[in-house]
Amino acid sequence: MVGVSVLGISGSVGSSTVKVLRQFPDHFSLRSFSVHSNWDVAKSLVEEFSPELICITDPKLVGQFGDSFGSTKIVYGDENLTELVKLPTVSVVVTAVVGARGVLPTIAAIEAGKKIAIANKETLVTFGPLINRLVAKHNTLMVPVDSEHNALYQLIEREKRSNIRAITLTASGGSFRNLPIEELEHVSVKQALNHPTWSMGPKITVDSAGLINKGLEVIEAHYLFGFSYDEIEVVIHPQSLTHGIIETLDGACLQYTSHPDMVYPIAHSLFYPSPTPHMLIERKPSTWKTLEFFPPDTKRYPGLDLAYQAGRAGGVAPCIFNAANEEAVALFLEEKISFTSIPRLIESALNQITNVYPETLQGYLEKDKETRIYIQNEFKKGGVTT
Amino acid sequence: MVGVSVLGISGSVGSSTVKVLRQFPDHFSLRSFSVHSNWDVAKSLVEEFSPELICITDPKLVGQFGDSFGSTKIVYGDENLTELVKLPTVSVVVTAVVGARGVLPTIAAIEAGKKIAIANKETLVTFGPLINRLVAKHNTLMVPVDSEHNALYQLIEREKRSNIRAITLTASGGSFRNLPIEELEHVSVKQALNHPTWSMGPKITVDSAGLINKGLEVIEAHYLFGFSYDEIEVVIHPQSLTHGIIETLDGACLQYTSHPDMVYPIAHSLFYPSPTPHMLIERKPSTWKTLEFFPPDTKRYPGLDLAYQAGRAGGVAPCIFNAANEEAVALFLEEKISFTSIPRLIESALNQITNVYPETLQGYLEKDKETRIYIQNEFKKGGVTT
Repeated sequence: MVGVSVLGISGSVGSSTVKVLRQFPDHFSLRSFSVHSNWDVAKSLVEEFSPELICITDPKLVGQFGDSFGSTKIVYGDENLTELVKLPTVSVVVTAVVGARGVLPTIAAIEAGKKIAIANKETLVTFGPLINRLVAKHNTLMVPVDSEHNALYQLIEREKRSNIRAITLTASGGSFRNLPIEELEHVSVKQALNHPTWSMGPKITVDSAGLINKGLEVIEAHYLFGFSYDEIEVVIHPQSLTHGIIETLDGACLQYTSHPDMVYPIAHSLFYPSPTPHMLIERKPSTWKTLEFFPPDTKRYPGLDLAYQAGRAGGVAPCIFNAANEEAVALFLEEKISFTSIPRLIESALNQITNVYPETLQGYLEKDKETRIYIQNEFKKGGVTT
Repeated sequence: MVGVSVLGISGSVGSSTVKVLRQFPDHFSLRSFSVHSNWDVAKSLVEEFSPELICITDPKLVGQFGDSFGSTKIVYGDENLTELVKLPTVSVVVTAVVGARGVLPTIAAIEAGKKIAIANKETLVTFGPLINRLVAKHNTLMVPVDSEHNALYQLIEREKRSNIRAITLTASGGSFRNLPIEELEHVSVKQALNHPTWSMGPKITVDSAGLINKGLEVIEAHYLFGFSYDEIEVVIHPQSLTHGIIETLDGACLQYTSHPDMVYPIAHSLFYPSPTPHMLIERKPSTWKTLEFFPPDTKRYPGLDLAYQAGRAGGVAPCIFNAANEEAVALFLEEKISFTSIPRLIESALNQITNVYPETLQGYLEKDKETRIYIQNEFKKGGVTT
C-alpha cells in the first residue's frame, strides 16, 4: 500500500488524482491533502479516505474548522503544507497546488526522500536550477504529471538519449486559435476561459489561450529532461490526442497518443516505476479521425517566443516570466487589462528587470516579488493596459 | 564492413537498398545480388560495387551473359539464389524477390546463420509455421523491411510484451479509397496501378488497392511478432506517415511516424542492432499537417476479412490465400477478370480447398500448386470473372 499526499486536492489535477485513488483502493492510501478554502470537498474526502492530516491554506480560514475531524488532524496555512509531505506513511507527493507556493513543500518532499508526482509548474519554471541541484543531491524520483511532460517522460525512457534529436510538446492552440489576430485585443475573459479540449482552472486556461502555458512547459521540459532550448519544439495539435513526440536521429518520430484525460498521466506517475494496470478508457487508432499538426503562429502567440527568450537567458529570467505572467493574468481575469497586454507586460518585465543567477531560494523569491511590484506599477501607470 | 546480399535488386525495395548502400560505403559492401531479367541494372551495379557473385533468375536468359563479368561470377536460375546468400563474406541478406521463390534462399540464409532483412512477404505468409521453427532453431535475427512491420518491430522492442494490448498496421487505403463501391467492379488496371502515396511494383499496388496487401501483412505480423489475430488491427491512414502503432495496457498508443520512404526501414534493418546514423530526411511534426485515421470499410475491402479468416484457420490457409491472390491478380493485370473478382476467387479457394497442417515445405508447396490450378480452372469456367 502506497501512502499518498495531494497538495491542492480540489483543483482539476487533484480531482483526477482522487479518481485514480478510488479506482485503486488496494494500491494507494490517501494519507494527507490540502485544500485552499473548499471545506465541503475537504470534509467529504476526509469521510471517504480518513487521512491522518489535512491542511487548509486560505489565511482567512485559520482555525475555522477546529484542529481535527474524526481521527483526521487539521492544520492551517501554506507554512504547514510541508507537514503533509513529511508524514512517515507518505511515500508519494502529488504537488497540484498552483503558483510559487508549491516550492517549499516540494523541497520538503525532496529532502524527506519522497517520490514526487510534479503537477506544480512554477516549482521547476521558477526555481529550476535550485530544484535540480536538490533532486540530484537526494536522488529524487520526480515524475511529471502534466500530460505533455508525462508523455515525453514515457517516450524518452524508451529511447537512448544519444539517439534523440528533439522533443516536441503539443499545444491545442487554446481558445483563440481560429480568431482573427486583430480581434485578440478585444476578447473577453469569458471567451478566454472557453478552452476547446481541456477543462482546467481559469489561470491555466488563459495561459493556454496565449500559448504562455506552452512557454512555461518548454521551460519545465528543459529543467526536467535536460534538453537545450534548440532541442525543444512546439507544434499546434488542436485535437489534444498526441501529447508528446520525440524525433530520433534516423529521421523518425515516436508519438504518444491517448484519450485527453488527466487520469492517464496521474495514474502513470503514481504507479511508476511499476506499470499502470489496465483500467483506462481505450482510444483505438480507428477512432482518432483527424490529427492535425502545424507550426505555431508567433504573431498570434508572442508569449511563446518570450518564454524561449527567458529560458535561454536562464537565471531568474524564467522566474520573472512566470511572476509577470501571473500578475498580468490576474489583472486580465479582473477585467482590468486586455488579453494582448499579458505578453506586453511580460516583455516589459523581462527587458526592465535585471537578470541574476542566485544560489538560494531567497534570491528567486526576491525577484518574484520585484517582478510582481513592477507589473502592478506598470498597470497603475496605464502604459500597457490597452 | 558488413557484407550484403540483395535478392531482387532491381525492384523497388532493391533500388532503395542500393541507395542506402551508396550512402554508407564505409559500412556495407554489396557481395552478391540477383535480378530477374534486367541486365542493364545488373551490369551497372556490377561495375559500381564489384560483387563476388550475381544471379539472373529468368529461365529464358540462362547462359546469356556468360559466367563472369570482370571479377564477378554470374549464375542463373532461381535454384542458384541460395548460392548468393551462402557466400562466407555475406552477413546480411535482403530478401526482396517477389513471391514464393523467396522461400528457399531465405531458408538457406537461416541455415547459414545470416541476419535476414525480410522483404519477401510470401515467405512468412505462406510458410510461417515452418520458417518460425527454423528461426527458433538457428536463433536467426530476422528484421522486417516492410515499412509497417519495421515500425512495429521498433515499437515492440521499446515496450514490455506484457504491456502491449494490440498492434495496428496502417493502410493508405490504396487507389480506390474514395471511389463509390459500386464502381469498383469496373475499374481498369491503369486505375488500380495509380497508388496515392507509395511507388511500388504492379502486383503489390493492386494488392494495396483491395487491402489484400494489408491482409498479407496482418498474417506476416502474426508470424513475425507472435500476436494473435485479435491483437492485430488495421487502420486506414491515407497520408502514410504513421507506419505502425502499438496500444499499451494503460490505454495509450505509441505511433511510429516518418517520411514515407523505404530507405528508413531498409537502413534500420541493415544497421540493426546498431543504431541508424543520422542521414535521412527529417520530417518534423510541424510539417505533418493532417494525419487521418479511420476504420477500414469491410464492404469496400472484402479481402481483408478473408485474410483474417485464413490467418485464424492457420495451417495452409494463408498459403491458399496468397496463391489464390497471386493467380487472381495476374489475371486482373492481364485484363481477364474484374478487380472485384480477386476477393471472390480467393474466397472460393479458401472454401473449396481442404486445409492441412504440414510439417514440411513440400506440404505447403503442394497446396500452393493445387490452389493455382484451382484458380485457373475457376477462371476457365468463367464463374467468377464478372
